Amino acid sequence: MSLASASRSVSVAVVGVGLVGAEFVEQLLAFPAPHPFRIVALSSSKSTAFAPDGLTLTSGTWKQTLVTSGGALRSPADLANDLAALVKPGADVVLVDNTSSDDVAATYPTFLSAGINVITPNKKAFSAGLRLYKEILDASHAGGARFLNESTVGAGLPIVSTLKDLVATGDKVTKIEGVFSGTLSYIFNEFSTGTPGGPSFSSVVRVARDKGYTEPHPADDLNGADVARKLTILSRCIPELRTALPDGFRSVQTRSLVPRSLEDAATGDAFLARLPGWDSTFDAMRDSAARDGEVLRFVGVIDVASGIIKADLERYPKTHPFATSLGGSDNIVMFHTERYGARPLIVQGAGAGAAVTAMGVLSDLLKLV
Amino acid sequence: MSLASASRSVSVAVVGVGLVGAEFVEQLLAFPAPHPFRIVALSSSKSTAFAPDGLTLTSGTWKQTLVTSGGALRSPADLANDLAALVKPGADVVLVDNTSSDDVAATYPTFLSAGINVITPNKKAFSAGLRLYKEILDASHAGGARFLNESTVGAGLPIVSTLKDLVATGDKVTKIEGVFSGTLSYIFNEFSTGTPGGPSFSSVVRVARDKGYTEPHPADDLNGADVARKLTILSRCIPELRTALPDGFRSVQTRSLVPRSLEDAATGDAFLARLPGWDSTFDAMRDSAARDGEVLRFVGVIDVASGIIKADLERYPKTHPFATSLGGSDNIVMFHTERYGARPLIVQGAGAGAAVTAMGVLSDLLKLV
Repeated sequence: MSLASASRSVSVAVVGVGLVGAEFVEQLLAFPAPHPFRIVALSSSKSTAFAPDGLTLTSGTWKQTLVTSGGALRSPADLANDLAALVKPGADVVLVDNTSSDDVAATYPTFLSAGINVITPNKKAFSAGLRLYKEILDASHAGGARFLNESTVGAGLPIVSTLKDLVATGDKVTKIEGVFSGTLSYIFNEFSTGTPGGPSFSSVVRVARDKGYTEPHPADDLNGADVARKLTILSRCIPELRTALPDGFRSVQTRSLVPRSLEDAATGDAFLARLPGWDSTFDAMRDSAARDGEVLRFVGVIDVASGIIKADLERYPKTHPFATSLGGSDNIVMFHTERYGARPLIVQGAGAGAAVTAMGVLSDLLKLV
Repeated sequence: MSLASASRSVSVAVVGVGLVGAEFVEQLLAFPAPHPFRIVALSSSKSTAFAPDGLTLTSGTWKQTLVTSGGALRSPADLANDLAALVKPGADVVLVDNTSSDDVAATYPTFLSAGINVITPNKKAFSAGLRLYKEILDASHAGGARFLNESTVGAGLPIVSTLKDLVATGDKVTKIEGVFSGTLSYIFNEFSTGTPGGPSFSSVVRVARDKGYTEPHPADDLNGADVARKLTILSRCIPELRTALPDGFRSVQTRSLVPRSLEDAATGDAFLARLPGWDSTFDAMRDSAARDGEVLRFVGVIDVASGIIKADLERYPKTHPFATSLGGSDNIVMFHTERYGARPLIVQGAGAGAAVTAMGVLSDLLKLV
């Protein structure tokens, strides 16, 4: 890949310097010169550093630089305004949104219509209602700017790009089926192995949280919303389903694994303290499946012909790849298409984590140039 | 993906109209307008049609058009000359080589240095000696033209692009291991299932040939050269191994499954007639593996640390994805990297066939614009 073309400059504004954002900045700073990228803006939750000609940042110390010399926090709308002034022929500008903020997501149309490209692992904008999604498409068209969101599904795994390639080259997707949540992958890989008995559900969830695999409040994973959001993003890449989910992820048939009586648990600790009361229910499901030679997996399914889009706990034979091939917190996605008719196209691997998510973001940035 | 930009034109010269070439032309003709592509040249093995402003081709009948109104066959060098005249700012020119010809492959430097991009599923140029490969890199740099060869490995599966993305974003590849030949995948999936006994090796090879999975002469698959070529292409995407294979695929440690005494079999039929004489040898290997709970698979391995690059028949436990997850003529590739450390990134699916190969070619063409 030749990036040596010195005539082109790409100004990058990074919003969000948490785990993924920090890793992204490090990966970009490590990118071998010569390259066209310069970071012109950097925003934490507290302050924004901005320099139209590029900030001077050094690996390992840039976070401190932001703390000491950052200015007042700029709102997304103000940042869009600042960046718009940098858009010129041959001078691309990119917003890299590494937050999970609804506010930043809601501002994408403003960025795009000003000609500022958007790259992000933030699922919010693309999995919300159709109205925002259409605004994003229209703004992208009007501003001649692109949005790339590979890392919203499967982090650095080539899932969104593979789906877009299949569709763009005229293949017909018939069904997508996969394990899209690294957290729920880990929990069910540990909990349901195809033999009756084993660790209790609540103990597996507790270990997952201790390892940092779940959100602070495990219900935020167990409610299935993350899977529903990913299914929404993928569905909108399929022509037949582009407008299938008017309310975005809320329109996906989603089975929540949060017991109704625990929905009021205010904290993760309170939730985990009461979850053992439901172990017998989960154990019974696992053991019933095992007696039939099956395992439980929390999957997402997009069935194009029937229009069914669901996030649900399903049973699979012990010989199915979802049982044999998964481990750790792997994601796996099977694309069934007209061309991949007899046997699906499969992508599998770690679908979460700062390094692989940042890699997906950087990879999108390289695609832009 | 917005292709509506009418200001840009992309002239496409298609060489080779066999199974893959014909499918590619059909996919391109079916591509929804408006798009920037026009086919300016079309070459079969007998004649060439050329029209600088674009040939008038219709789905289903274009092949007849080529027969009736094609002119004399142009050599690759002459075609490069014709196409060079079309290269202008904003007017891209692409050679799509759908042959498996060494002659066309040897001319890539001429095309590239004239500013003509090259897209191809033809492995020849990229898996030959380093000299041609360096000429290609130099010509690409000098002419400002790109070469894209996604479909040389795994057809339409995202294998080359995934490897390039990993490397470009700064990940370190430690090992690549996979089943790269659809033909050998089918043969060993059928022959070695992990239990002693089963169909004879020669009978499986015969069925594979009857189904059209092998070359007319099965030795052309069983000699492992196809796998060695793919390993060469992938190795050259890895910085540490860029110059590791001076003689290209001939430098790969390759185990041929063609019995020495059958190397002189002039035809596929002669080969198959004598192959049963070797069944007991293959059966003994299979049954020995099965007694240890293992299967035989013909794999390619790239071990970056040791520099070992080999195409070989290996044994894998019955629980390994190469045993549990493969079927039909699937390819599977596992990328072990620094970021995908604990668990590899895996891509799997049909790695051969006209429709999916042409799709990989068309996908490269879309990446170019």
